[in-house]
Amino acid sequence: MDLKQELQNRIAEIEEMLEQYIPVQKEFPPVIFEAMRYSLFAGGKRLRPMMVLAACEAVGGNKKTAEPFACALEMIHTYSLIHDDLPAMDNDDFRRGVPTCHKVYGENMAILAGDGLLHHAMETMAKACFMNPCKETTGAMAAIAKGAGLYGMLTGQVVDVYYEAKPMTKEILDFIHVHKTAAMIRGALEAGARAGGATEDIVAKFGLAGEKIGVAFQILDDILDVTGTMEELGKPIHSDEKNEKATYVTLYGIEKSREIAADLTEEAMQIWEDLGSSCDFLAELTTYLLKRTH
Amino acid sequence: MDLKQELQNRIAEIEEMLEQYIPVQKEFPPVIFEAMRYSLFAGGKRLRPMMVLAACEAVGGNKKTAEPFACALEMIHTYSLIHDDLPAMDNDDFRRGVPTCHKVYGENMAILAGDGLLHHAMETMAKACFMNPCKETTGAMAAIAKGAGLYGMLTGQVVDVYYEAKPMTKEILDFIHVHKTAAMIRGALEAGARAGGATEDIVAKFGLAGEKIGVAFQILDDILDVTGTMEELGKPIHSDEKNEKATYVTLYGIEKSREIAADLTEEAMQIWEDLGSSCDFLAELTTYLLKRTH
Repeated sequence: MDLKQELQNRIAEIEEMLEQYIPVQKEFPPVIFEAMRYSLFAGGKRLRPMMVLAACEAVGGNKKTAEPFACALEMIHTYSLIHDDLPAMDNDDFRRGVPTCHKVYGENMAILAGDGLLHHAMETMAKACFMNPCKETTGAMAAIAKGAGLYGMLTGQVVDVYYEAKPMTKEILDFIHVHKTAAMIRGALEAGARAGGATEDIVAKFGLAGEKIGVAFQILDDILDVTGTMEELGKPIHSDEKNEKATYVTLYGIEKSREIAADLTEEAMQIWEDLGSSCDFLAELTTYLLKRTH
Repeated sequence: MDLKQELQNRIAEIEEMLEQYIPVQKEFPPVIFEAMRYSLFAGGKRLRPMMVLAACEAVGGNKKTAEPFACALEMIHTYSLIHDDLPAMDNDDFRRGVPTCHKVYGENMAILAGDGLLHHAMETMAKACFMNPCKETTGAMAAIAKGAGLYGMLTGQVVDVYYEAKPMTKEILDFIHVHKTAAMIRGALEAGARAGGATEDIVAKFGLAGEKIGVAFQILDDILDVTGTMEELGKPIHSDEKNEKATYVTLYGIEKSREIAADLTEEAMQIWEDLGSSCDFLAELTTYLLKRTH
């Protein structure tokens, strides 16, 4: 597989899909739609929607069923970045190589653009469920809602903000990584498997792989914040240090952090291998994520 | 009907229901759960969840089906108040007689508490749909998501913020009232009717009544902002003037505004009358809302 070409194709497919799901408004002030689209189409690896679609296909499902859920997940991911970047939160000026939403549209419109993306994710999924009410659609939505919510991403972000400049333990850092980052990647793979009609047993395997990939992904992010350049990352480096945030690197050092990420990746790879050749793309993606430089 | 007693009973029932749907978290910093509960349980008329439940019963449905949607709607309503009150928005210090969420928990936690309530509303509804995937549950969820989202409340709020201190027309003010306030009341009544298994024709009638009641409700709010006292309203009066917001009162005067609200109420009452005695409570509630002093 030419993974680079494959990723480009899949990203292009997702960009086109997102275009269909996110409206262009011409009546009344279009500013909110502009602000939402500004952040949603500022690039990004499209990793999460790609995983939803790939998981659905891997279990033999129809990718069409997974589309609205893939798009909704990317809307939720983008909203979380907009709110994380706000002055009252991380106060970041750059994201994905361009000024953050509030730097361009003001703080009030950035809050509303984030809210709007979360609303539209909910509406997109609810509509898909209403048009086809079944275990596949409602299960995909439930998996995403859970990964994003009070027992997932949102609480991870809360604990992250709460422990800024406070003494940090490894236990708390793991809680943050598992919730803030891994829960949504777990949710993506579970949602795709559910949309594809997988059994509970298979859904659980996708979920477990997602958690391992998600934590490894966040550890890599911690490492890249120290070793990467702003050009590679599209956002300011050393932001963790600036915000006095404890990370895997500050608690374990770079080498040990790399080892832990590699071990987690290996465990996920074992799950893909057990599940067979239908998970080949997900396996390649998993390896690629460990080697990424941005 | 002793409406005052009836309202008290229904409010008590909803408070108890909300208690079951909104978690108390003891692990890790419970601050986000405290902040969410602080705003959710600060009183309020519980008008929207009451309408979801009453509409479900009025069409002969099982109120149990409507419960998670009623609670989700109140979570969404509360989130919208927390974000509206933020310093970057209306910058209000009091709501429902107590300091606003960001005054107590800080701006970052207030943003996250609002996000958390919206997340939890989505998760509550998604779970209810997954446990019982059918037209009734997914339809209720879709009605609420639409009323709250980009073609409802959210856009109303955007246009409201956008036109602050800008010249306002009657057309724009109507757009704001229909979207910011009425869309959620429309959504409440539609969701209840859908949860109760009503036909499309009946759902449409509940929706239309909701829109009329919602606009009348907002006009009354505009009037009370001028004529009420802070003790009655639990929030600062003359906030529209402070924020240089055009309202029904500034565009039409108090008397004409009262007339328009009364006409809309009359039109809604006609719909309840056509639908028959099962809508008696909704009819009493509609009349009561026009006469309220807070």
